[in-house]
Amino acid sequence: MASLGAPRIVQVERDLMEKNGRFAAVNRARFAASETLVLNLMSSPGSGKTSVLVRTLLELKGSPVAVIEGDQQTSNDADRVRATGAPALQVNTGKVCHLDASMIAESLAVLEAPKRGVLFVENVGNLVCPAGFDLGETKRVVVVSVTEGEDKPLKYPDMFAVADLVLVNKIDLLPYLQFDVALLVANARKVRPGVEVLELSATTGQGFDAWLAWLRAEQQKVLRTE
Amino acid sequence: MASLGAPRIVQVERDLMEKNGRFAAVNRARFAASETLVLNLMSSPGSGKTSVLVRTLLELKGSPVAVIEGDQQTSNDADRVRATGAPALQVNTGKVCHLDASMIAESLAVLEAPKRGVLFVENVGNLVCPAGFDLGETKRVVVVSVTEGEDKPLKYPDMFAVADLVLVNKIDLLPYLQFDVALLVANARKVRPGVEVLELSATTGQGFDAWLAWLRAEQQKVLRTE
Repeated sequence: MASLGAPRIVQVERDLMEKNGRFAAVNRARFAASETLVLNLMSSPGSGKTSVLVRTLLELKGSPVAVIEGDQQTSNDADRVRATGAPALQVNTGKVCHLDASMIAESLAVLEAPKRGVLFVENVGNLVCPAGFDLGETKRVVVVSVTEGEDKPLKYPDMFAVADLVLVNKIDLLPYLQFDVALLVANARKVRPGVEVLELSATTGQGFDAWLAWLRAEQQKVLRTE
Repeated sequence: MASLGAPRIVQVERDLMEKNGRFAAVNRARFAASETLVLNLMSSPGSGKTSVLVRTLLELKGSPVAVIEGDQQTSNDADRVRATGAPALQVNTGKVCHLDASMIAESLAVLEAPKRGVLFVENVGNLVCPAGFDLGETKRVVVVSVTEGEDKPLKYPDMFAVADLVLVNKIDLLPYLQFDVALLVANARKVRPGVEVLELSATTGQGFDAWLAWLRAEQQKVLRTE
């Protein structure tokens, strides 16, 4: 069924997307110049994105990192991230349900992209809106937790269709749930054939070795010089 | 930080909201005429909305009920609901991250609102978009699960600000989590002072007596005659 006022929305959306694309290209050039790996972390609210990020930052301690935190409201997540010692900037999107490339461009005026390091962008918790907005990132990482149901990739295909990596979080809870990880993976690959999937737990650290190895391999790819 | 192209979006949004309001008023009059209690169920993806609904429908077996299911894609949820014997209509919203009142009006051409019964509207799993759209419902029920983090009401205030009832789901998992239900409730009431909160588990049925009692009390309020 059609939404209200569809034609005008479509026109505005096209303008918006063109503008977003221009900002994304500028961001991308900037990240290439500083040889920064930029990961756009997306998920539904409560998947444990921030917990994964906090544990990852503790593991990467000493390496050049920075974090841009997107939320409708509060600076809770930036506060949690800063407690690890990593520099973090909170972007409050207000009524808007995603980050866009102009917000990232503005953030970079305040928070420098770490040279030869990793910039984590934690998007607003939402399985719909952020999927459409290129931020100029290197890779898009979609976090999904085992408490959410195996059919999420089919119900939110736009998000999974743009994923470069799917992180299946909270696997420490599997003994207490009826959850079929293989079915989730199969559903993700229906939407995004061949997408890489890693299972982990931000609570216990299980699976972090593979995730950190993925991260280091991606980081190598953006370095132009040894 | 401002989003891209904000002024034009604001104008379109105002038109959209006026149009939505007109459809919502028509729906509301229709529900009043059929003395139907209409509940708009909202939550982030994976909170267990559909599981709560399925168990509720089984408990209400024999009463007049119907379900409108909103999802970006798939008819999985409508299929799960129909398995209980309840009539259900799936609305696929495509790129749109919420139901709107016109979609409900169109749905009512196909699926009749149950006279002196309950119409459940399961919105698209999203803690941002659905909050702004009045569907003509009687009450708005926000489902949040104990695996999601206690700060969700603060991070998604628009959603909790419109809630008439908060259902805290998956309480069967509390022994395996570090989760402070009292803190979640306090945060919800910071955003929506005095909001009613019920704790339950769609898996074990714990807490369903209170939820069904709430439902029956609300149903009494919409009946004009005994």
